[in-house]
Amino acid sequence: MNAMSEREIGYLDGQYLPRSQARVSVEDRGFLFADGVYDVVRYYAGRPFTLAAHLERFRKSLASVRIELDWKQHDLERISTELVRRSGLADAQVYWQVTRGTAPRKHPFPKPGVQPTVLALVYPEPRLDLAAPARTMRAITRPDVRWKHCAIKSISLLPNILDTQAAVDAGVDTAILVRDGLVTECPSRSVFVVERGTLLTYPLDGTVLDSITRRVVLELAREHGIPAREEAPRAERLPSADEAFVVGTTTEITAIVEIDARAVSTGTPGPITQRIHRLFVERVARECGLAR
Amino acid sequence: MNAMSEREIGYLDGQYLPRSQARVSVEDRGFLFADGVYDVVRYYAGRPFTLAAHLERFRKSLASVRIELDWKQHDLERISTELVRRSGLADAQVYWQVTRGTAPRKHPFPKPGVQPTVLALVYPEPRLDLAAPARTMRAITRPDVRWKHCAIKSISLLPNILDTQAAVDAGVDTAILVRDGLVTECPSRSVFVVERGTLLTYPLDGTVLDSITRRVVLELAREHGIPAREEAPRAERLPSADEAFVVGTTTEITAIVEIDARAVSTGTPGPITQRIHRLFVERVARECGLAR
Repeated sequence: MNAMSEREIGYLDGQYLPRSQARVSVEDRGFLFADGVYDVVRYYAGRPFTLAAHLERFRKSLASVRIELDWKQHDLERISTELVRRSGLADAQVYWQVTRGTAPRKHPFPKPGVQPTVLALVYPEPRLDLAAPARTMRAITRPDVRWKHCAIKSISLLPNILDTQAAVDAGVDTAILVRDGLVTECPSRSVFVVERGTLLTYPLDGTVLDSITRRVVLELAREHGIPAREEAPRAERLPSADEAFVVGTTTEITAIVEIDARAVSTGTPGPITQRIHRLFVERVARECGLAR
Repeated sequence: MNAMSEREIGYLDGQYLPRSQARVSVEDRGFLFADGVYDVVRYYAGRPFTLAAHLERFRKSLASVRIELDWKQHDLERISTELVRRSGLADAQVYWQVTRGTAPRKHPFPKPGVQPTVLALVYPEPRLDLAAPARTMRAITRPDVRWKHCAIKSISLLPNILDTQAAVDAGVDTAILVRDGLVTECPSRSVFVVERGTLLTYPLDGTVLDSITRRVVLELAREHGIPAREEAPRAERLPSADEAFVVGTTTEITAIVEIDARAVSTGTPGPITQRIHRLFVERVARECGLAR
C-alpha cells in the first residue's frame, strides 16, 4: 500500500488491509441477519477521547447479544491505535463491528466454534476548532418505530437509516424521535432539551442508547452547577423549548436551531448550549492534550 | 466447480459462483446497517411454489425501502431457476437479498449511482412427503419487541434472532410473539390459532409480515368452508385454544402442540390443522406437478 491508500485502511479478522479489499462472506450473520454490534470512538490529534468508556460499552453490547470476542486475539485498543497510526490521520473516528460469524443461513445461533467476524475501520474527521461556536442542525420529529432494546448498539439499523433519510428528504440534518409523546433520541445521536434553565434528556430505561457523550454532558452539567434531569422531554413542549441540542461521538455538541420548520427560540445556539459546547471542547482539549 | 460444490452455489452481482467464494465489501450497507431486504421461495421437485407472489412481495419490499433494482440485469426468476438447475437440488429454497450497495459508512442513502448488491443462494430442503401428517413444534411466548414495520421483509433481524435463540435455549422450536396481549407472529413464521372451530390470525396492519403461506391458508379455508378471521388471537386465551399452527415458506403447515410448557388441547395436531396441512400439500402437489 502506498501513502494514499494507507489512509483507507481497515482491520479484519487479524489482518490490516486496504478498506477496499476487506470483504466478508455473504453468509456472514452480520450481512444476513444484522447479527452483530458496533461502536465508534473519536480520535483528536492522534489521541482517543473516552476510549475506556467506549471499550466498556462495546463489551456490554457484545454480552447483551451473547457474542464472545477473544480480546487477546483482537485487542481493539491496540488495533485502533495502529489503524490511526497507519492512516496518518490525526483526527479520525475508529469504527468497531463484531458479528456472530459465518454459517449457513439459519436463525438460531450457529454451533460453538464459529468465530466472530471482527472489523475495525478508520475514517477522517474534522480537526477540532477550539475557538469555534457550536455547530448547528435543523431537525424534524418522527415517530420512534424502532425495537424496544435500543440500548444495545446493534447493526440492526434499517429503521434509523429510513428516519435519517426522511430528514435529508425534508431538507434538514437529523430526525428527532418521539414515542408516546416523549422525545427519546435521534437515529444516531442523543437529544437534550433546555426548559427553564434545566437540561432534560430521556432516561436510560433500555430503549435508548447509553450515549457516552450524553454521560459527559451530564457530568459537565453536574460539575458546573447547570441543572440537569434524566427525564424525557415532552414533544408537545418542543415549540416552546428554550434550547435544544444533540450529542454524540462525532456529533459532539451540536445546537438544534429549528424543529419541524419552526425556530427553536431565537433560531441560534442558546447560552446553555454554548456553555456545554465550550465545556465539552475544554474537556476534549484536556483529555487529548490539544494546545489552547 | 465439481458436482459436489455445485450444490453450494450462489449468485452475486451478475455472477454464479461457489457460495464459499461469494463475498461482499465490509462497507456494504447490508453489513454495516442492515440496509436491505430479502425473500425466500420454495422449490418442490424442481418447480417453484407461489413464485409470482414472492416476486411481487420482493418488489414491494424493495419499494418500501426505496432500493431500485434493475430487474433486466438481475432477473430473479431466471436466476432462481438457474441456481436450482445448477445445484441439482430438486427440493430447495432459494434466498434473495438485495442491499443498498457499498459506500463509506454514513447513515443517509448514498449518492445516486451506487449499485445495489444482489445475492441469491440455494439451500436444500426435504422432499415433501405427500402422505405424512403435519410436523409439530413446541413454542414459548415472548414479548414482541420488534420495530413497528415488520411488514417490510428487511434483513434488520437481530430481534428475531434473539427471540429464536431464546426458544432454542428453552428447549423448544419457536417463539410466539405477543404485543399488547395479542399474538402477532413468530420471528420467522405466521401463527394461526383455532378457537371454537374458527381460524384466527393477526390482521395485516403493517406490523406483521404479509406471509404468502398465510395467504394460501386463508384461501384454502375460504374454498373449503373453514371459518377464518383476520383478527388477533388473544394471548390470554392460548391455554384454552383448540389448536394452533404456524406457517411459512419452509415451515409449511406445522402444528404447535405445546405453548409455554402446556399442551395445546390433546398435545397432538388437531383436526383443523391436519385438514389445512392436507389441503396445503394437495395445493403444492397440484401447482408443482408432484405425483400422488
